[in-house]
Amino acid sequence: MSDAPCMPLLHERAIHFDTRLCVGIDPVRERLPEVLFNDPDPLLTFCTTIVDVTAEYALAFKPNMAFFEADGAEGLDRLLALIAHIPDEIPVILDAKRGDIGPSSEQYARMAFETFGVDAVTVSPWMGRDSVQPFLDYTERGIFLLAATSNPGAADFQSLEVEGESISVHVARTASYWNEYENVGLVVGATGPEEMTRLRKAAPDLPFLVPGVGEQGGDIGRVMKAALNDLNEGVIVSVSRSILYTRDPEFGRGAEQAARAFRNLLNDAREEALDVR
Amino acid sequence: MSDAPCMPLLHERAIHFDTRLCVGIDPVRERLPEVLFNDPDPLLTFCTTIVDVTAEYALAFKPNMAFFEADGAEGLDRLLALIAHIPDEIPVILDAKRGDIGPSSEQYARMAFETFGVDAVTVSPWMGRDSVQPFLDYTERGIFLLAATSNPGAADFQSLEVEGESISVHVARTASYWNEYENVGLVVGATGPEEMTRLRKAAPDLPFLVPGVGEQGGDIGRVMKAALNDLNEGVIVSVSRSILYTRDPEFGRGAEQAARAFRNLLNDAREEALDVR
Repeated sequence: MSDAPCMPLLHERAIHFDTRLCVGIDPVRERLPEVLFNDPDPLLTFCTTIVDVTAEYALAFKPNMAFFEADGAEGLDRLLALIAHIPDEIPVILDAKRGDIGPSSEQYARMAFETFGVDAVTVSPWMGRDSVQPFLDYTERGIFLLAATSNPGAADFQSLEVEGESISVHVARTASYWNEYENVGLVVGATGPEEMTRLRKAAPDLPFLVPGVGEQGGDIGRVMKAALNDLNEGVIVSVSRSILYTRDPEFGRGAEQAARAFRNLLNDAREEALDVR
Repeated sequence: MSDAPCMPLLHERAIHFDTRLCVGIDPVRERLPEVLFNDPDPLLTFCTTIVDVTAEYALAFKPNMAFFEADGAEGLDRLLALIAHIPDEIPVILDAKRGDIGPSSEQYARMAFETFGVDAVTVSPWMGRDSVQPFLDYTERGIFLLAATSNPGAADFQSLEVEGESISVHVARTASYWNEYENVGLVVGATGPEEMTRLRKAAPDLPFLVPGVGEQGGDIGRVMKAALNDLNEGVIVSVSRSILYTRDPEFGRGAEQAARAFRNLLNDAREEALDVR
């Protein structure tokens, strides 16, 4: 974890290192490469290797807590070791999607920002302001609210229309009001550029964390054009499985090449978007 | 954990042991009684004592994962020890409020039903069907979807109106469609009997897990009347802090008395509701 306030750090790192790529870390035992079968902790070695080979291209790392928590206490120890392994200057976004009544969210915020010491966390907006406030109170950490997710089920409730706009857009606008410490961002799936445009209009100043570009299949060019803010930044694209699980039998080499390719692809898409603007 | 399918078990236990009380377990270090200060694991001893003194009145126990996870791996070991301590025949509902894209929800479902071996889990509906499906696929376990929570922030998004009804009611009706294995229930806050009536109409067959009666202050009588199903059951009222943290300096005695009082209060409210029907 860095000592710097999370959101400005992400903005500055994007420019300074010319990358908008967030490397998602979702380790699955069944997809581990054969070469790790005799490793004492194959999942941890897999994760730390991914960090080592992709750090050069990573604006941030995003471990998803589900993949660690599934192994109970052992998994949380592994998550802690992984976070310790990530260089201090690279922000860690814990993909936790938590949210509960105030006193319980206080505990989840403590979990993320103190026990695991991450820079940012993903939070569900479903239970409203008081469920998010304990996270917001860590004024230098980042909170990415799930405004519009990239999965098919996002259509079930997030896309319902209230007074002519989707609930996702409503969440985005509300999140802007909650941004008094400039520590709020949005998770915005890469699935539709029209909705992306509406979300950017509803939350012009919030950083967007964008999943759904790799294995989930969103169109990078149109997404980038719609998502960039007035400073031509504010977009962090998260790619997980398409970097972790390549066809290269040397998984480290595969991940390094995939991360570099995605970093370049995102920068090219951004350049093109700027040309059109 | 019991071997029996969760939802029928809850129904039968309610009738057989004449209780609709779920004891919520939210251990907070700052609120621990003095007598435990020298205990080697005061949080675990607190939790297991609560289980011992309230088991007689409990239809189910509901540990909230936030309060364990905040301590990292150590906390998850404590949760495992607590679950092992709960008598097998009393269902354990893990209050986790998880929900993510399919492959991640698969991991969360494995966490709840295999790693911790609980009978039921609370799940957020925000990300829609494919985020819930991995939980539903454990056909004998219970899934309580957050339809209408009991906190003030529930008004921010859950209460928004779509085509003349709240999103909560929409979630309740959708959850009914998802109930093909009869393993779905709803979390429905105890704050408004009018909305409770609409939710019961939208999901006539789903068990309701109702928080917000104790420290959060809902009105038990009106809530019970609105929430009971056609079989005059289907209501599990969860009380946490008002049982865990009484004014009695002997916390075990305080918890025992509070659990008995709530069990009786709920049964009285149910009897009254039946008289009116």
